[in-house]
Amino acid sequence: MRGAILYGPRDVRFEERAEPTIIEPTDAIIRISATCVCGSDLWPYRGISPVAQPTPMGHEYCGIVEEVGRAVTSIKPGQFVIGSFFASDNTCPHCRAGYPSSCQHREFVTTAQAPVLRVPLADGTLVATPDVPSRDLIPSLLTLSEVMGTGWFAAEAANVKPGMTLVVVGDGAVGLLGVLSGRQIGAERIIAMSRHESRQKLAREFGATEIVTERGDESVAHIKDMTNGIGADAVLECVGTQESMMQAIRSTRPGGYVGYVGVPHGVELNGEGLFFSHIHLHGGPAPVRRFLPEMIDLVWNGMINPGKVFDLTLPLDEVAEG
Amino acid sequence: MRGAILYGPRDVRFEERAEPTIIEPTDAIIRISATCVCGSDLWPYRGISPVAQPTPMGHEYCGIVEEVGRAVTSIKPGQFVIGSFFASDNTCPHCRAGYPSSCQHREFVTTAQAPVLRVPLADGTLVATPDVPSRDLIPSLLTLSEVMGTGWFAAEAANVKPGMTLVVVGDGAVGLLGVLSGRQIGAERIIAMSRHESRQKLAREFGATEIVTERGDESVAHIKDMTNGIGADAVLECVGTQESMMQAIRSTRPGGYVGYVGVPHGVELNGEGLFFSHIHLHGGPAPVRRFLPEMIDLVWNGMINPGKVFDLTLPLDEVAEG
Repeated sequence: MRGAILYGPRDVRFEERAEPTIIEPTDAIIRISATCVCGSDLWPYRGISPVAQPTPMGHEYCGIVEEVGRAVTSIKPGQFVIGSFFASDNTCPHCRAGYPSSCQHREFVTTAQAPVLRVPLADGTLVATPDVPSRDLIPSLLTLSEVMGTGWFAAEAANVKPGMTLVVVGDGAVGLLGVLSGRQIGAERIIAMSRHESRQKLAREFGATEIVTERGDESVAHIKDMTNGIGADAVLECVGTQESMMQAIRSTRPGGYVGYVGVPHGVELNGEGLFFSHIHLHGGPAPVRRFLPEMIDLVWNGMINPGKVFDLTLPLDEVAEG
Repeated sequence: MRGAILYGPRDVRFEERAEPTIIEPTDAIIRISATCVCGSDLWPYRGISPVAQPTPMGHEYCGIVEEVGRAVTSIKPGQFVIGSFFASDNTCPHCRAGYPSSCQHREFVTTAQAPVLRVPLADGTLVATPDVPSRDLIPSLLTLSEVMGTGWFAAEAANVKPGMTLVVVGDGAVGLLGVLSGRQIGAERIIAMSRHESRQKLAREFGATEIVTERGDESVAHIKDMTNGIGADAVLECVGTQESMMQAIRSTRPGGYVGYVGVPHGVELNGEGLFFSHIHLHGGPAPVRRFLPEMIDLVWNGMINPGKVFDLTLPLDEVAEG
């Protein structure tokens, strides 16, 4: 088969590589229905994270089970399944505490931009949909593999509750789905920080009530202005830079919450500044496996349509263009 | 009157200064029944925080109201009162949200090591006890002005719940009262990190079930060992150094909570490390005003005896010795 391989900055190739097979008895092999490019793929693609050797790409996936190892009991060939970017056993203490993305046996899925994928710990990792979905549901189901679950986790980590004022820093797919999550939970005001017209439009469609276009100090001053000098109850940090993190922390009221899901790149937090900000801080790799059953329900029943974040669909052999 | 003044490292003097009077109509003047030396006084005393000029000392206090300004309505002369180290109006949005130590009109009380003290925003800041207390209750009531409330806030910030495994980093007064708070809330295991025999003894008396004497990597390994490799549910950071902060974060299980109340000195947190630790982080200057009514009840009814943290009692004119 052929799959995506990153050779170095701006050099993605679609190349022949061995088709995966069952290695561990807990594996499943799935035929990919859809996969996508993640914002985090851009760090190595742009040369910000180094690429030591040709590296397969892809960690978001859904598809049809072709084969399972002999120890797999709940997942069966023919099922349409979605899994997290971190395979997890769903039974260890960290999984049981709600953090499968810190599973004691987690494995990062890294080869999903291909027609066939080996998924470790299949019983723990994969969740089947009620039936094989119609074609139009697939984009939304694909988002549940990462970005939708990550936006949802940001909102959970930021303790979003009905009636709150929420700020979302970052208008990529995760930020936009953070807006959607905030709306689904019932935030009253949702202020999206966005400079791109098409994303502002989608943010409003997903539930944003206001847009702030400034960055840095000016954005913080604008948020303070909009909240009678108080700051937001909850802020989602969906970028991962020093600027975005400080923007999030400084937009939050004392006692408020920052949920951060942008993988930090070069971020350093000054302890004294954080102390006197009086904020709550929580984040990390989203435990999307925990959210899958509920999210599948919401998509299946047409309550949310997170697949709208995709703005380009290509056949797999044009992955480099993607 | 005479009061404590810090001139520089290890140079505290008990010197004549003007007796305070009502300045704002919201002030109260109280005659101090007891005041104390705080762990945070040690930073400038040891020369770690610079002292630019002779500086009055003291921010923990309780005593009898002598006089109130014309705008004060709830506090009356003759009452025995306790207040926080931060004066607060108790009506602004941050106070109403539970964070009086981030009050929009907060003022730091800095002159309490003296016989008479001016307290700003008296109605918001001071809470009266049911009656003038007997002498034996005064040490415990004094702790409510800061250290007991700070230990309690650490436990609240770390989301301590009945049945949890709790670790306390730091065996000063705040750490010891963090142990007491954890016990009061119902933590099942309370592991105190302590190297001093007298403090270990008091930690056990306050409810610690285990003691860890290591620091740094070894202490983290020991905690992991004691918790089947999982880490603690909740950790209180009661020191404020880089080492103690990292010790706290690394002792916590993914999804667990660090409550940090040691004022950070030179602490820098790496964003990526924090992200993958998957912990919740909350702390800051303790909103002790919020806890005063409940804490006064607990002391008044003999449920807790936090005054045991004091190990030396001196007349005020020997404050330099203290």
